[in-house]
Amino acid sequence: MLLEKLNWRYATKKMDPAKVVSDDKVERILEAARLAPTSSGLQPYEIIVVTNPETRAKIREIAWNQAQVTDGSHLLVFAAWDNYTPERINMMFDLVNKERDFTNEGWENYRKMLLDTYVPRDPQVNFEHAARQAYIGFGLALTAAAFEGVDATPMEGFDAAKLDEILGLRERGLRSVTIMPIGYREEEGDWLVNLKKVRRAKDSFISVVK
Amino acid sequence: MLLEKLNWRYATKKMDPAKVVSDDKVERILEAARLAPTSSGLQPYEIIVVTNPETRAKIREIAWNQAQVTDGSHLLVFAAWDNYTPERINMMFDLVNKERDFTNEGWENYRKMLLDTYVPRDPQVNFEHAARQAYIGFGLALTAAAFEGVDATPMEGFDAAKLDEILGLRERGLRSVTIMPIGYREEEGDWLVNLKKVRRAKDSFISVVK
Repeated sequence: MLLEKLNWRYATKKMDPAKVVSDDKVERILEAARLAPTSSGLQPYEIIVVTNPETRAKIREIAWNQAQVTDGSHLLVFAAWDNYTPERINMMFDLVNKERDFTNEGWENYRKMLLDTYVPRDPQVNFEHAARQAYIGFGLALTAAAFEGVDATPMEGFDAAKLDEILGLRERGLRSVTIMPIGYREEEGDWLVNLKKVRRAKDSFISVVK
Repeated sequence: MLLEKLNWRYATKKMDPAKVVSDDKVERILEAARLAPTSSGLQPYEIIVVTNPETRAKIREIAWNQAQVTDGSHLLVFAAWDNYTPERINMMFDLVNKERDFTNEGWENYRKMLLDTYVPRDPQVNFEHAARQAYIGFGLALTAAAFEGVDATPMEGFDAAKLDEILGLRERGLRSVTIMPIGYREEEGDWLVNLKKVRRAKDSFISVVK
């Protein structure tokens, strides 16, 4: 089932500008990302959903003019925390305590350990760590799109600093890492749609220590 | 369906050492990672499947003594390329040409662009980029495990340099980034199994630009 969906999806090169992904599908795609696991459960990123046509036109200009940015109906921007701060770490630990309605010494020691380890660390190291977590959610959103029969294009080809400026992300302590237009493929004009999906052979990708 | 599976899974804290994940399930979990998308399709990482008990005992020692490393039946190690080299980039582009049985000018220009951009770049930047891609596959392997009814624990808590030494990864141009024991939960003794899954509320995780 999952493998079937992963085989169905591909990095859609041409989307039909006339077709709009329905709200309930968008909702489930975002929910998959929200449920995705992250290191220590910190969820150190946010997703910005851009539907505004003018904003997407501006983004397309700083994304190698890739047409899916405006031809899709929604653009999902994954933006990682620029750093780990006490406020951010405490926010998640407090939320967990609140939702579970108890506190626990082991958990509080773990909070302290993260505060002691992450907060003094080089912000770039922290950002890279947060960015990795965003990629888990990014992969799950792509997968969720496939389950919805929605096409998506994973994209790193954009000027992150400029995107941050367009969306005002730096002021919010965020840095964009990946973007994903979603929509519906327009087979005519999509050079990739009928080409074979190529992956490294199992024996060059996986090894076993028995 | 997907959301159900994502709700079912959790970072299993106690695995039953008597239970073994069957080969066909392991196969499908690995296949999900192999099918996962990566930047430019480079698949810049490998997965090492460790079943050997002595090796896993050694790994447990450098992984905060987390028992799942030895109580699970398989340990999946995700190791990213330490750098992008012409050999590696050409390997993937040549494979694509061979599998699709044609060459194309646009595609060859893209290869050249990657060679010109990635190869001269700081190896640490390249490694971080490769590591992010590994996290997509990591997330998909976790998801595939859930579809198989197999428990898994995403783990970053280990000494990567020591793990690389144990598995001889640096000599292969690889650096470990995450590990994932798979097996079956032992509910008694798992402090997390019955606790509520906590995620940031939608309105603090997702924003919309309409």
